[in-house]
Amino acid sequence: MNNEPDTPVTVIGLGLMGQALAGAFLKAGHPTTVWNRTAAKADQLVADGARLAPTVGEAIKAGSLAIICVTDYEAVRELLGASDVELHGTTLINLTSGDSAQAREAARWAEQRGARYLDGAIMAVPPAVGTAEAVILHSGPQSDFEAHKSTLEALGTVTYLGADHGLASLYDVAGLAMMWSVLNAWLQGTAMLRTAGVDAATYAPFARQIAAGVAEWLPGYAEQIDRGSFPAEVSALETDARAMSHLIEESEAVGVNAELPRLFKAMADRAIAAGHGGEQYPVLIEEFAKPSGDA
Amino acid sequence: MNNEPDTPVTVIGLGLMGQALAGAFLKAGHPTTVWNRTAAKADQLVADGARLAPTVGEAIKAGSLAIICVTDYEAVRELLGASDVELHGTTLINLTSGDSAQAREAARWAEQRGARYLDGAIMAVPPAVGTAEAVILHSGPQSDFEAHKSTLEALGTVTYLGADHGLASLYDVAGLAMMWSVLNAWLQGTAMLRTAGVDAATYAPFARQIAAGVAEWLPGYAEQIDRGSFPAEVSALETDARAMSHLIEESEAVGVNAELPRLFKAMADRAIAAGHGGEQYPVLIEEFAKPSGDA
Ligand SMILES: NC(=O)c1ccc[n+]([C@@H]2O[C@H](COP(=O)([O-])OP(=O)(O)OC[C@H]3O[C@@H](n4cnc5c(N)ncnc54)[C@H](OP(=O)(O)O)[C@@H]3O)[C@@H](O)[C@H]2O)c1
Ligand SMILES: NC(=O)c1ccc[n+]([C@@H]2O[C@H](COP(=O)([O-])OP(=O)(O)OC[C@H]3O[C@@H](n4cnc5c(N)ncnc54)[C@H](OP(=O)(O)O)[C@@H]3O)[C@@H](O)[C@H]2O)c1
Repeated sequence: MNNEPDTPVTVIGLGLMGQALAGAFLKAGHPTTVWNRTAAKADQLVADGARLAPTVGEAIKAGSLAIICVTDYEAVRELLGASDVELHGTTLINLTSGDSAQAREAARWAEQRGARYLDGAIMAVPPAVGTAEAVILHSGPQSDFEAHKSTLEALGTVTYLGADHGLASLYDVAGLAMMWSVLNAWLQGTAMLRTAGVDAATYAPFARQIAAGVAEWLPGYAEQIDRGSFPAEVSALETDARAMSHLIEESEAVGVNAELPRLFKAMADRAIAAGHGGEQYPVLIEEFAKPSGDA
Repeated sequence: MNNEPDTPVTVIGLGLMGQALAGAFLKAGHPTTVWNRTAAKADQLVADGARLAPTVGEAIKAGSLAIICVTDYEAVRELLGASDVELHGTTLINLTSGDSAQAREAARWAEQRGARYLDGAIMAVPPAVGTAEAVILHSGPQSDFEAHKSTLEALGTVTYLGADHGLASLYDVAGLAMMWSVLNAWLQGTAMLRTAGVDAATYAPFARQIAAGVAEWLPGYAEQIDRGSFPAEVSALETDARAMSHLIEESEAVGVNAELPRLFKAMADRAIAAGHGGEQYPVLIEEFAKPSGDA
């Protein structure tokens, strides 16, 4: 098991994120080989003890675990497709952002060349890397994850999601959707309350409490989705839709943006039109699961 | 102070919610007078010890604290405007749903007739009334709230928001916007993950963790809004916008609804076009604070 602090690691790509990753490995005591197209970005890392490889091929030869983190999957393919790169025997962990189809395709491509491949997604900004706050998602063969888990823990809180290589990027964007939703709802409320002279600091604890409280309902609501049955145990969708009208009217009356409330209502109205007004909110999964037309 | 369990209370309106309110007062030992247009809805309460008044005027005469909870503010005005109703000396708490302008207008109207007036909003379903889970918001003169707080505590967790009578309904709809946002983001993520065979129960704890985590950022982000200064301490809005594109593309690629992601991006793009791409997410308050055109 590669769980000793002296397990050698390779980091390819030294942008803001790659530098943070390599820095965290060095700090944890791992012999760290790095490569970047613009070699000067390795200067600080080399001063801190990293070894700069002359080519991607040499960087990968330096150890059995290589992390790649560049702009996009095209750059990944370009770099790893170079004629001097031998992937056989390497475990490659791709932390480049992309979509689930790209992750699955990259896995096939790398595995055909004899690599073990894990896809990953970093839910953190570079300064958080190396702390527990940095959540790093992984998907692919579980045994490959387990083999390198303790080495990867130098980077943050590492999580394994499942064998499907597409999972890391799906969870990543789903988590971001939650982040923007909480922020947007808070901004909507803050904008409304400011019209009554309430400052953002006064309103924020209320918004925090509601968000945290509703978060607790999700596991229970998830059971309704998995059973495909949505009895109105606490309230019916049509009750929500009426209250959504109040939100729209109040937003308009106080002169703040009403686009988000209108979208909530439009989706609820479609579910009601489809006959689900007497069921509970999670029945909206049927609307969310349908492709939308072009907008 | 009316904080003894034998403080008499009046409840006007015995729909689902009014019945729950009167039931909670009875359970807490308060002599409870009730009135409803359709008198039969009082039967169970009368069996449980309530006194049914023959008119709204008589119901209000029965004590110094009257709660009204009917369909809308029009019904409130119709009932309290009857010629035999004497509001002088009564503290009226209106828990009927409405908007902030209606609340302020009702306060003026009631105060002109000699009543003390608090507006309120019930953030709970009827079965939760009488438990700590039922959050009941109040706004209006603080001394009137304090005078009746311990009586009102029979109904749930009672909160005082401020002297502006419009606050209860503003906080109410703002809180609902947060609720729907968390639920919608969770549905978006659940729909995406289900395309990879991940069931809702497996995904829900992740969504819960993100929502609760982001909720913790709000008080800090609120300080940026109150200062009107949005330095990109952790990331810049244009970075969010790029990730929003990934969310849109991924949603479309897996065949789920992309309207919510597209709205996120449209609002972020407008703020970027206004020159805020290098600032942090809460700078979007400027978009939320602007009226939207008709949609
Ligand atoms: N920064 C964040 O907050 C953050 C957070 C989560 C995830 N991520 C993801 O992490 C990845 C890297 O982000 P970053 O912030 O490090 O970006 P960055 O600072 O812009 O760095 C981009 C890196 O990719 C390299 N690169 C791009 N195209 C290349 C090509 N064709 N051939 C060789 N190298 C190429 C660049 O090399 P040169 O130095 O030679 O240009 C540089 O090392 C992205 O997928 C990003 O979405 C970033
Ligand atoms: N139920 C909930 O989950 C919930 C949650 C939070 C807030 N609320 C709010 O609480 C209020 C009452 O809701 P509810 O669930 O009790 O509604 P409901 O079951 O439909 O009852 C409506 C009540 O209003 C009375 N009413 C309506 N128009 C009237 C008029 N012109 N004159 C006299 N009485 C009139 C009805 O009298 P009749 O019995 O004679 O028809 C009944 O007592 C609403 O503002 C609602 O938004 C409800």
